[in-house]
Amino acid sequence: MISKNRIRFIKSLEQKKNRQQVQLFIIEGEKMVLEAIQWIPEQLVSVYYTSDFFLNSIDEGYDLELISELELKSISTLKTPNKALAVCKYLPSKSIVSPFSIVLDGVQDPGNLGTILRMADWFGISHVYCSKDTVDCYNSKVLQATMGAIFRVSVTYIDLDDFFTENNKPVYGALLNGNNLFTTQFENEGIILLGNEGSGIRESNLKYIDQSITIPKFGHAESLNVATAGAIILGSVYRGI
Amino acid sequence: MISKNRIRFIKSLEQKKNRQQVQLFIIEGEKMVLEAIQWIPEQLVSVYYTSDFFLNSIDEGYDLELISELELKSISTLKTPNKALAVCKYLPSKSIVSPFSIVLDGVQDPGNLGTILRMADWFGISHVYCSKDTVDCYNSKVLQATMGAIFRVSVTYIDLDDFFTENNKPVYGALLNGNNLFTTQFENEGIILLGNEGSGIRESNLKYIDQSITIPKFGHAESLNVATAGAIILGSVYRGI
Repeated sequence: MISKNRIRFIKSLEQKKNRQQVQLFIIEGEKMVLEAIQWIPEQLVSVYYTSDFFLNSIDEGYDLELISELELKSISTLKTPNKALAVCKYLPSKSIVSPFSIVLDGVQDPGNLGTILRMADWFGISHVYCSKDTVDCYNSKVLQATMGAIFRVSVTYIDLDDFFTENNKPVYGALLNGNNLFTTQFENEGIILLGNEGSGIRESNLKYIDQSITIPKFGHAESLNVATAGAIILGSVYRGI
Repeated sequence: MISKNRIRFIKSLEQKKNRQQVQLFIIEGEKMVLEAIQWIPEQLVSVYYTSDFFLNSIDEGYDLELISELELKSISTLKTPNKALAVCKYLPSKSIVSPFSIVLDGVQDPGNLGTILRMADWFGISHVYCSKDTVDCYNSKVLQATMGAIFRVSVTYIDLDDFFTENNKPVYGALLNGNNLFTTQFENEGIILLGNEGSGIRESNLKYIDQSITIPKFGHAESLNVATAGAIILGSVYRGI
């Protein structure tokens, strides 16, 4: 049985400020919890699961508790709770950095951040750096949209000025009036800089861009969704690798 | 003043079956309504707007009604209603077909369909054909995600067997075990076939694929979001045009 205090504590982690205070977050659903057990067992604190959860490994240093469907419902943020929920410690940054990284300047939509992390994972990008006003990667909607990529891609919230001042790699910035993406020659390493959904890359960060890039337009849409634009750009980067 | 009957009627259009019965749908928000006035004035039936709406054209054959913020709230599906709402007739299919089209086999997520329409619009794709179980393009979440692309890209719900039987263009199908996208030579016209979020392209439709394509993976994600995959594929198609 989960105590009322525990339920209250777990529910409190739906709020970013509470997560930050204790440096813990929640993951939900069979697939996500199984991926956490596989990829980040050392970060797990507690795993709550119902009897139909396929638990394939129990030898790690975290608490395991079999609970009822009703109990799962009492701690879940999902409309349809799905077999398991885990409390995890904030994820450490990876030490090995891939040749390409992504920097996000003020991305607000949880689905966009999650989708960007998922495609970073697909292409083997180790790090996504976010401006401090980018949506929190431990937000439940972000986590669901990553489909597990959060366990493999490091997300770091940083001061972009500090980051770019120390950075030596070429910075490719997605703008609406840049150079043709399809004729851009990418170096063997670099930073892909993507901006906010409505306003793009902040003016104060434009000075850090070495090559501005634009996806050629053949139709009428005013702009592309930031995750879509990122996908097309990464496609161009990785076709040369 | 909007009558109670009218409010009830507008609210009824939140349901797909009611929309289909009267062949009408709702668009919301200043940007979307202004785009509708610009791109599809002949499809508009009524435009409801508050005093701060920037109405730049009033010479068309539709009803215009100035309403209060409170009235807008009573007919809106948005948490924060935004200056205008319009009732529109279902959009006719465009007669001119671009060299490339997209076919969707069972895409379920409104955000994905909207994002796909937005990028189709960006690349000048005139038609997106959907299997009958694909999410309804007049769903409010789809419409919002299109950012106006719905007014410029034709969406048609079809029997895919009939469609492919009559189709003469090469069909490029996105699969997890196909040929390398980055070395695929695209013809000057074709169909990009994308499948359901969880299960991909239905097995019964695999026989229609002339070239299977896969986005090379360098990392660990099991799959990509369908809109992300579509974006990367379209990027490859249009870089050769």
